[in-house]
Amino acid sequence: MTNNAQETKLDFIFARRSIRVFESGPVGEAEVELLLRAAMAAPSAMARDPWRFVVIRQRDTLEAIAASLPNGGMLASAAVGIVVCGDLNVAHDRQLSYLLQDCSAAIENILLAASAIGLGACWLGVHPRENRIARLREILDLPEDIIPVAGIALGIPGEKKRSRTRFKAAYVHPERWPQKGHIS
Amino acid sequence: MTNNAQETKLDFIFARRSIRVFESGPVGEAEVELLLRAAMAAPSAMARDPWRFVVIRQRDTLEAIAASLPNGGMLASAAVGIVVCGDLNVAHDRQLSYLLQDCSAAIENILLAASAIGLGACWLGVHPRENRIARLREILDLPEDIIPVAGIALGIPGEKKRSRTRFKAAYVHPERWPQKGHIS
Repeated sequence: MTNNAQETKLDFIFARRSIRVFESGPVGEAEVELLLRAAMAAPSAMARDPWRFVVIRQRDTLEAIAASLPNGGMLASAAVGIVVCGDLNVAHDRQLSYLLQDCSAAIENILLAASAIGLGACWLGVHPRENRIARLREILDLPEDIIPVAGIALGIPGEKKRSRTRFKAAYVHPERWPQKGHIS
Repeated sequence: MTNNAQETKLDFIFARRSIRVFESGPVGEAEVELLLRAAMAAPSAMARDPWRFVVIRQRDTLEAIAASLPNGGMLASAAVGIVVCGDLNVAHDRQLSYLLQDCSAAIENILLAASAIGLGACWLGVHPRENRIARLREILDLPEDIIPVAGIALGIPGEKKRSRTRFKAAYVHPERWPQKGHIS
């Protein structure tokens, strides 16, 4: 296979872009379930699957979350919001690090899946901001051990972006980290 | 589009499985670069792109890392190992949480990309285990601010696994967290 053909095979990755503008229009229950099936196909440390998902469609809840997340304003006009949380009691060895890694892989799967089925999506940072965590706890009634990691805004894309990567060769080192004073 | 057709569109996600057995055979430079292009197409908090990659082909280095990671034995027979690190000085607000989230999204992209081009791959946990971090620092000459998050073993798949998801409806809550004593 040529390298170009292989790159084309990966367009599902390069075509995923953060969509921050939505057109009005619904995202169905079946589509949301499909995204969650994709989320829970992610790898998880020791297969503990600590991820938990709150799926929000009520407009006042979406607006309340939008108001509590800087750069999250588009959530107010999103068809659906998903808040991805991790259960610290379930994460491997009760480690926050594993919780974050597992939830992040699941989030990336949701974003890629949304893009692949023609939806727009954007990752909205929550953890580790204490004020955002506290506000989401309040809005969503999250118990102490349920840690909100991020929000995802979902809707019909209202902007188009080209496929891309931010690949930088300088971020890649062969065999070991280059020693100071050396060019790798 | 029918839901089945949409689910088929997402087979790139469901077909990704942890491959822990490799056949002998090379993984080319062009393929590794393609995986790294996929990695750096992941979203990153404030686009800080704190991810860094050490690509290992030397057999003695692969064997040394394999010996230092429980369940990482297959790295000794992998064509290539990638250690994904985060630069704490570059991560948004120097937060370990963002570093872990960004690197985990990049790792998931590598795993999905490897699966899509017919390679086998497995995520090998490093962070937050202090002894694994220390050993990788030593083997790869990693500076203090470069935090190894995980290893990835890559090779020609020596086992076949079916597509799947570990979806559980019980992990999904509509609108808010269910109150104690209530069934959501």
